Amino acid sequence: MQQIFLYDTTLRDGTQGEDISFSAEDKLKIARRLDSFGITYIEGGWPGSNPKDMEFFERARAIKFKHAKVAAFGSTRRAKNPVEKDENIRALLDAQTPVVTIFGKTWLLHVKQALQISPEENLALIADSVGYLKKHEKEVIYDAEHFFDGFKQDQEYALKTLKAAAEGGAEILVLCDTNGGTLPWQVGEIVREVKKNISVPLGIHTHNDSDTAVASALTAVREGCIQVQGTINGYGERCGNANLCSIIPDLQLKMGYKCVSDEQLAHLASVSHYVSELANVKHQKNLPFVGESAFAHKGGVHVSAVMKTALTYEHIVPESVGGARRVLISDLSGRSNIIFKAKELGVELNDKSPAVQKIVNEIKEMEHYGYSYEDAEGSFELMVKRHTGEMKHFFDLERFKVSIQKDSLEKEARSEALIKIRVGNETEITAAEGDGPVNALDLALRKALEKFYPELKQIHLTDYKVRVLDTQSATAAKVRVLIETKNGNKSWNTVGVSPDVVEASWKALVDSISYHLLKHRVKSSH
Amino acid sequence: MQQIFLYDTTLRDGTQGEDISFSAEDKLKIARRLDSFGITYIEGGWPGSNPKDMEFFERARAIKFKHAKVAAFGSTRRAKNPVEKDENIRALLDAQTPVVTIFGKTWLLHVKQALQISPEENLALIADSVGYLKKHEKEVIYDAEHFFDGFKQDQEYALKTLKAAAEGGAEILVLCDTNGGTLPWQVGEIVREVKKNISVPLGIHTHNDSDTAVASALTAVREGCIQVQGTINGYGERCGNANLCSIIPDLQLKMGYKCVSDEQLAHLASVSHYVSELANVKHQKNLPFVGESAFAHKGGVHVSAVMKTALTYEHIVPESVGGARRVLISDLSGRSNIIFKAKELGVELNDKSPAVQKIVNEIKEMEHYGYSYEDAEGSFELMVKRHTGEMKHFFDLERFKVSIQKDSLEKEARSEALIKIRVGNETEITAAEGDGPVNALDLALRKALEKFYPELKQIHLTDYKVRVLDTQSATAAKVRVLIETKNGNKSWNTVGVSPDVVEASWKALVDSISYHLLKHRVKSSH
Repeated sequence: MQQIFLYDTTLRDGTQGEDISFSAEDKLKIARRLDSFGITYIEGGWPGSNPKDMEFFERARAIKFKHAKVAAFGSTRRAKNPVEKDENIRALLDAQTPVVTIFGKTWLLHVKQALQISPEENLALIADSVGYLKKHEKEVIYDAEHFFDGFKQDQEYALKTLKAAAEGGAEILVLCDTNGGTLPWQVGEIVREVKKNISVPLGIHTHNDSDTAVASALTAVREGCIQVQGTINGYGERCGNANLCSIIPDLQLKMGYKCVSDEQLAHLASVSHYVSELANVKHQKNLPFVGESAFAHKGGVHVSAVMKTALTYEHIVPESVGGARRVLISDLSGRSNIIFKAKELGVELNDKSPAVQKIVNEIKEMEHYGYSYEDAEGSFELMVKRHTGEMKHFFDLERFKVSIQKDSLEKEARSEALIKIRVGNETEITAAEGDGPVNALDLALRKALEKFYPELKQIHLTDYKVRVLDTQSATAAKVRVLIETKNGNKSWNTVGVSPDVVEASWKALVDSISYHLLKHRVKSSH
Repeated sequence: MQQIFLYDTTLRDGTQGEDISFSAEDKLKIARRLDSFGITYIEGGWPGSNPKDMEFFERARAIKFKHAKVAAFGSTRRAKNPVEKDENIRALLDAQTPVVTIFGKTWLLHVKQALQISPEENLALIADSVGYLKKHEKEVIYDAEHFFDGFKQDQEYALKTLKAAAEGGAEILVLCDTNGGTLPWQVGEIVREVKKNISVPLGIHTHNDSDTAVASALTAVREGCIQVQGTINGYGERCGNANLCSIIPDLQLKMGYKCVSDEQLAHLASVSHYVSELANVKHQKNLPFVGESAFAHKGGVHVSAVMKTALTYEHIVPESVGGARRVLISDLSGRSNIIFKAKELGVELNDKSPAVQKIVNEIKEMEHYGYSYEDAEGSFELMVKRHTGEMKHFFDLERFKVSIQKDSLEKEARSEALIKIRVGNETEITAAEGDGPVNALDLALRKALEKFYPELKQIHLTDYKVRVLDTQSATAAKVRVLIETKNGNKSWNTVGVSPDVVEASWKALVDSISYHLLKHRVKSSH
């Protein structure tokens, strides 16, 4: 099977997307994840364009990647600068990456109007920018910006720019459909023409403005491109870049190319979710292969056929990309979902267990109020155990009082929480300060409980999310808080909903702590 | 120019999408809108499958459509029923539409496993179902379900099913990629093969499971299909149907076919928004052609080029599909983004204005802290006006104190805010209760200020969003709050960031109010 090399630009081109931004820390996390997923090239950013990207490259040097090579991205030198004095080229070297990707102009419209230089000067600066980086022993990838538009305007000149980059020593020439306006068969014809004239390996970089970015990338591979550039979830400027989460399974499951191992491919959905989570944008349900709806069946006819033979309404095996079949809620599927889920938690229920209907009813009621148990399996488990009589009671709240004060003399607001709890016949009252009201309440609650339950010292909150439901009610809207807690390697998620963000957090905190105590006490009593 | 006939199934296949549902009233509204937009066929539903669809057909009969024909959808008769006694066929006639679309099985896998009849019986029921509807003077469209999968398994049989429908008298035979697993060039080859054997006009119906539904539909048109089935915004089961909002401009602006008039095409974006509004789902920003981001530019290099020549980074003229160019503000912005934006706000800046660099610097600093101005143009405008000396000062905070209390006796937490502000030499102290701390603070602040600024009574908070930045710091993480405020038809967005959700909300509230006061006072002083 022919290998296709994946070039991920989520961390650079992806951040051009509206609402997409990553901290340097996020970028490092994503890079590690892309590495273990089997991506060959990870484009980290444009050094020199902003301090965040520089920080990424500095810290990335300390990471030992298993497979991936980090690439720094930038433009060819400016026309007025000798290459060794060009700041942008300097920043690319300062990033100290094994790979440097530079883009140059193909389209005479841009050469004349944006750069305002002659066609020959443009060729010269492509060749010597690439050559200079090669002298510094970089693997150089040349991105031919607007290649397809340029080719349509002046085929001969477009090829000359590629030849200039090839003469400079570029390892791969990437044909970019920067404006996303080229249709797949046009991409195919142009790649075929380029192949006749150029012997250096080719890559493809497409955008989704015509809603055909994936098809164009696949077509280019059929015509001989060996590198595909894209982003996770198709994030990117305007309508986004070609979506690697679609391209990889199309190439590997349908077209017989090799991108990653089968085992890595089974992590596709989780990589997709991970990146959307760090980008802090909602994961799009209808994304091909990786979306929550990708293998969801709603129509009754479809569901019953799928139960007989999955192939009837599923184009691939969902598990091959880390997905799973879903049957959307009807009363009956509700019961079987619960039985299936409870089994995962080690609780044996069957269709006749009276608890099942009670759980289905409680879930419907709670979800109607605003709860969601999809990402809160900790809270779901507590609910199941309450209905099966396996839950224990650990403490009661007498009261809490949280206050946030700000005055003209202080720079930041100050938050404090006072709490009184009861465990059996004993009570404890205490207080804490925190970074914001929720943090103060969290600290005060633990302080009060640790006297009774010293094992709470083992656990740490590691994630905290807030989602405003029904945003139209503005500041009076309900909010849903999701908390992730860790004990060593084990983590669990809990949820709380209220019009009051502090109270919603309180509910999720109580579940988080009860979950740990339940697990810990059950274990110790054996 | 060759005419392509558009067949919209938003009201039927679109509603199979997760989270998509329409009332009969919604369906009628959408049908009217699709008619004036220039759609030829509007598939209204599956009569007999639910009462809502029957209501739609009844009420649709009273509407005089300018151009569109309403189609009722259903399956061929059941094997055990004579056609004139089949309930489904009966319901199709009862719908009293000029057009009936019926689907039949192509794929032997389905014939054997789902229908459990012989291949010959299947051919017979296709032919007589179509024939019976023709006898009742319907225009009959035949949807060949799973056509491509069936063709791959048994080419000869797949063609026989089409011939059966043709013999029955079907006007158009539609090739359906029901599972969405077929790639565009496979679609192209198969359509070409069908054209050699079948003389009845062909249509195409694709799904987006391989992320290539649009490309497949376009390819089929190139191979001679004259009808395209799809949905507005690509709504539909799993990953959705082929998106007509992409197909129409691709065909018409890039491929030289005629779908609707140019004037109608300029309503594409508004049709897309209208349908998402009635479906009550968020309009996806990155949708090609019609998304809010489709012509949005973020990177400084792009913005400065677009301002010289739009063609450099725009594949079509945004206005041709009812879109508009947007420039986003972020830490990737350069001076040209700021100048462009300021101009939109009525502030003339040029590259030499000293304020420009100060604004760029402040944005970078604030975004590093966690701010984002992309969706907070109100806060951005205030920042610009501070730097150009056009900002006014309306009030100072002396102090606020917000408290949240919960005790064992009360069901819900109670939030109160006390606030003291100063306006000139006067101070005002007041308090309010609210649904949660932010709501309480919002109410108290307005109460205190309305004494000085009665015009604040005109404005209302209409949206409130919270995003936890760096979720890993758990409850001590910074949060970003975005607020939308309305005054009549005009709305503006403001932002605040702090580790304390109440303080972050406070900052966004202060900007929201200052924005209104600034606009109002400037207007009144003229």
